[in-house]
Amino acid sequence: MSVLIVGSIALDDIKTPAAEHPDLLGGSASYASVAAAFFSPVNLVGIVGEDFPKDHIELLSDRRIDLAGLQVVPGKTFRWSGEYMPDMNTRETRSVALNVFETFTPTLPEHYKSAPFVLLANIAPDLQHHVLDQVVGPRFVVADTMDLWINIAKESLVRLLGRVDMLILNDGEAKQLTGETNLVKAAKAILALGPEFVAIKKGEHGCLLFGKNGEFFSCPAYPLEDIHDPTGAGDTFAGGLVGVLAREGSDEPVDFAALRRAVVFGTVLASYNVEAFSLERLKTVDAAQIGDRSRTLRRMSQFDAD
Amino acid sequence: MSVLIVGSIALDDIKTPAAEHPDLLGGSASYASVAAAFFSPVNLVGIVGEDFPKDHIELLSDRRIDLAGLQVVPGKTFRWSGEYMPDMNTRETRSVALNVFETFTPTLPEHYKSAPFVLLANIAPDLQHHVLDQVVGPRFVVADTMDLWINIAKESLVRLLGRVDMLILNDGEAKQLTGETNLVKAAKAILALGPEFVAIKKGEHGCLLFGKNGEFFSCPAYPLEDIHDPTGAGDTFAGGLVGVLAREGSDEPVDFAALRRAVVFGTVLASYNVEAFSLERLKTVDAAQIGDRSRTLRRMSQFDAD
Repeated sequence: MSVLIVGSIALDDIKTPAAEHPDLLGGSASYASVAAAFFSPVNLVGIVGEDFPKDHIELLSDRRIDLAGLQVVPGKTFRWSGEYMPDMNTRETRSVALNVFETFTPTLPEHYKSAPFVLLANIAPDLQHHVLDQVVGPRFVVADTMDLWINIAKESLVRLLGRVDMLILNDGEAKQLTGETNLVKAAKAILALGPEFVAIKKGEHGCLLFGKNGEFFSCPAYPLEDIHDPTGAGDTFAGGLVGVLAREGSDEPVDFAALRRAVVFGTVLASYNVEAFSLERLKTVDAAQIGDRSRTLRRMSQFDAD
Repeated sequence: MSVLIVGSIALDDIKTPAAEHPDLLGGSASYASVAAAFFSPVNLVGIVGEDFPKDHIELLSDRRIDLAGLQVVPGKTFRWSGEYMPDMNTRETRSVALNVFETFTPTLPEHYKSAPFVLLANIAPDLQHHVLDQVVGPRFVVADTMDLWINIAKESLVRLLGRVDMLILNDGEAKQLTGETNLVKAAKAILALGPEFVAIKKGEHGCLLFGKNGEFFSCPAYPLEDIHDPTGAGDTFAGGLVGVLAREGSDEPVDFAALRRAVVFGTVLASYNVEAFSLERLKTVDAAQIGDRSRTLRRMSQFDAD
């Protein structure tokens, strides 16, 4: 089954303690679409300016990513510039230029509207609402978000939670959104706002998945010694997750076992993504490597409890 | 098989945002011994003053804890007073009074010296050395430590690492000891100093277990909504871990599967311990509850990766 993905498409300038690269392909929809396309066909919705490099378009179109929903308009592409601190966990935004993104209204091509799986990748909650308004009878809707929207668009975000099946956010954001310091309490508070499931990402500490009926899954992080660029890890996780759900999509409701697998494969793809700048590693990783690392993750977390 | 445990025995005054209690039984050896005794007989080595309450002695002697190595001497028992911040993760030491601990020289009764499993619970590295000097042919030696010893006794601690099979410490301490910000690199640096295995505790994020031959296990934390008193969680973890190893002790070398189980049961006992002040919860928890939570932990971390 196919996945509808809406989010940002950006040109990133990224500096880490080890290197600095300009004009990289970035944005939540770029990472999420390439990740999802490993598992399912993708219908992408986004906007870029006339300066957007042809190579980046080809990277997307060479995969199972339908670009009918990609608006190419006069003006410059959204730009983000960030710098990572030596621990690679904290980063500072050096500059943001919304450019063509400022007037973006996501409009779905007719054949996108019946997509059974929807990922509202990280983007303003009002735009996420606007996409949902156009979708007809989706089976499973996942929303990603970030601290910025909790700060400046909390009302819209909270209203969105009543319209989605699952929210993805990181531990700091879960605490910020709910005012809880304990993640179990934060998860319960989020589920009370609407979604059936919430995934709380903890970076190097893995991911916690909670369901409204008390379901719980703790997914370990893949242990990495060298992180070259954490940009897009969360978007890649979300894209991989929804891609796996769509691959397994049937007429049955999405069950918790499928969600566990989806979280694991999202984790695996995110672990590859941070091994190189931009989408460089996602461009080369293959199905065999993804399978290897998911089985390694399973071995790493198995034990006999008796 | 039996476990030799040396560490501190203290009277604690503990303040949390919700409550404050004075004169609690505390100290690394108290928590570790009670935890280990769920699985194996314990030979305790420690020191208390004449003010040490009889009730506390009985709590220990009512279990499989041999107190032949407990020195009761003139003077006051070691005292620690601490306060937890609202997030329950950070704490401040309000006061420390070493009292009889200042002149403590751990001396092993003759029948302790052949203990096959040894836990050098959190205590000055010089005292840990002194205990090892008296032990004859131990099968598996585990050392716990803390930031204080890395700060003031690093040389002795590093020398100790060449004499033990396993080190337990938390993530902050692993970074402090090695100068690495990445935990995988920190673990490798610690293993290069001597021990065959290292367990890096991450509090609410679980525990990572590393072996010298590349073995790796990621143990989830048990999800808790309410933490009443984190004091002794690490000591309880270490005690439960060594107790399980001793229960399973055979003439074969300790293998990684046994260590995984030991980490899981240490995690389970620690999760119970933080549910009440001092050792109150460890006093009431039973084998059925320990089994339940270990199986829950397994269900929480299972997935099908294909």
